[in-house]
Amino acid sequence: MEKDKLIGVDLGGTTIKFAILTKEGDIQQKWSIRTNILDEGAHIVPDIIDSINHHLELFQLDRERVIGIGMGTPGTIDFDKGTVRAAYNLNWSAEQNVRTQLEIGTGLPVTLDNDANCAALGEQWRGAGDNEPNVDFITLGTGVGGGLVLDGKLVHGAAGSAGEIGHVIVEPDGFQCTCGNKGCLEQYASATGVVHLAQTEAESYVGNARLKEMIDNGDEVTSKIVFDLAKQGDYLANQVVDKVGHYLGLACANLANTLNPTKIIIGGGVSAAGRFLLDRVEENFQKYAFQPTRDVTELKLAELGNDAGAYGAASIALQSDREVM
Amino acid sequence: MEKDKLIGVDLGGTTIKFAILTKEGDIQQKWSIRTNILDEGAHIVPDIIDSINHHLELFQLDRERVIGIGMGTPGTIDFDKGTVRAAYNLNWSAEQNVRTQLEIGTGLPVTLDNDANCAALGEQWRGAGDNEPNVDFITLGTGVGGGLVLDGKLVHGAAGSAGEIGHVIVEPDGFQCTCGNKGCLEQYASATGVVHLAQTEAESYVGNARLKEMIDNGDEVTSKIVFDLAKQGDYLANQVVDKVGHYLGLACANLANTLNPTKIIIGGGVSAAGRFLLDRVEENFQKYAFQPTRDVTELKLAELGNDAGAYGAASIALQSDREVM
Repeated sequence: MEKDKLIGVDLGGTTIKFAILTKEGDIQQKWSIRTNILDEGAHIVPDIIDSINHHLELFQLDRERVIGIGMGTPGTIDFDKGTVRAAYNLNWSAEQNVRTQLEIGTGLPVTLDNDANCAALGEQWRGAGDNEPNVDFITLGTGVGGGLVLDGKLVHGAAGSAGEIGHVIVEPDGFQCTCGNKGCLEQYASATGVVHLAQTEAESYVGNARLKEMIDNGDEVTSKIVFDLAKQGDYLANQVVDKVGHYLGLACANLANTLNPTKIIIGGGVSAAGRFLLDRVEENFQKYAFQPTRDVTELKLAELGNDAGAYGAASIALQSDREVM
Repeated sequence: MEKDKLIGVDLGGTTIKFAILTKEGDIQQKWSIRTNILDEGAHIVPDIIDSINHHLELFQLDRERVIGIGMGTPGTIDFDKGTVRAAYNLNWSAEQNVRTQLEIGTGLPVTLDNDANCAALGEQWRGAGDNEPNVDFITLGTGVGGGLVLDGKLVHGAAGSAGEIGHVIVEPDGFQCTCGNKGCLEQYASATGVVHLAQTEAESYVGNARLKEMIDNGDEVTSKIVFDLAKQGDYLANQVVDKVGHYLGLACANLANTLNPTKIIIGGGVSAAGRFLLDRVEENFQKYAFQPTRDVTELKLAELGNDAGAYGAASIALQSDREVM
């Protein structure tokens, strides 16, 4: 029987997303379940096994046809052993024997990678990356993550922390980061970073601006509110967005000066600000990127939204040479 | 007959260096000739062919035993066609059909890469990189160049300009660079960059310092003089070296935050300042590098000197799957 199907799993702190895809990367079925993090996350892997087995039966898909399962996960992965640890939003602090359990429970080969990497590979393969071999991905959420695709493969680096674009220093001695350093991109371009920037700019701002009023009133300000006010012409909010554009443009330019990708894709919640944000990033990118790079690298918004992780997870299953034990 | 020899060629603007190596990377013979750039560099490739053929005969090395020739070259390489253009220090402005000419002239398969990349691969394979798979290389000469080795292979990027560490922006709106941008690493860490920094720092320096005197006298100041004075305790010179250390440390940290290498190797003329420079770079690296990276990445001085290029060129010949046409 020809092996022609892939299973992609995107394991998150609140939901687990599943998809069955053709080996060309078309999603044929998708579903999700809630992540049960009780009992130190002991239910998570059994729940994934049950859900896959149940849906294979439901869709009457012979497992002989499945090339493999790929899964994106938070935490630190040991790629040799197939284990995951330090995934605190899953309540997995101790090392979990994820790959072996999943392989025994499903009878299918399993490949793991981290969630930001899977989203990067998903966008590269089936999203804004147009399946080009050299694509970098930056995701702007609560934090800032990233993934690098070189010659069609994910870059892991020596200890699996390649692509930590969120911790590139964009302002030496700048805002304190949770990682212990100062001036990381994450502190200027994540949802919380944008709000922090807004508060700091507001302090020294003397004119009238709705954003200034809200901050002075102690109203709840989110990154979405900052972008919405900027779009409406609020002067202070635009000053904040200019700064975000500067830092992101600088980080994208230095990434391009280092890796010379054809595309840098920007995704995550903050990227919902769309072209309004991207245009400012582009302006600064043009200023800071080395000319041979500037001519080659296109900045784009992510296209797959929440499905990116499942696509990318399926892609790592396709690239893997693991076989059923 | 077993193929067990490699030929590495390092083509430069003043000399062409050659080496015959075992496939394990031990140099058995080396020699060099002067680069004849007359007549638009038309003699260069014929001279290389003659020199290789002559030495194969001299050493009575059967060409059946040669795996291939690798060559590092200045200029822009078209990897598909095996051509080189825009190598201005060779007088090659138009496209040169280098690979085909060399293959016909020697009867051996030829692989090309750029000179900084070859030096990077040489250091990774047989120098300070200890043959570890993830190693980055920065060379501080008249300019600043670089090369990235990932999983044992050179990173080229989409248009062959990956690893342009010299044009990473370390000071937005800083010193004007020859590339058109402002604040590139090259303007702070190359031989000319160090002197430029010294001149700028001297302007606002009010104390006594030999470096200040020399600059005010209009004496010729080189990067070597700056480092020598700093080693002797000159206050201003140390201020300059601190700045060089800051910019290089920042660039190394951001490289490590992006690629997570096990080693970053610093070579080129300016690196002759040795541990004195490296210690300052290290101090800033520790400050700016993301913790999981900091724990993994070691900064080292280059070890192969002028031979790095020939070693790396031999390595690309070893990695290549080209065969005799």
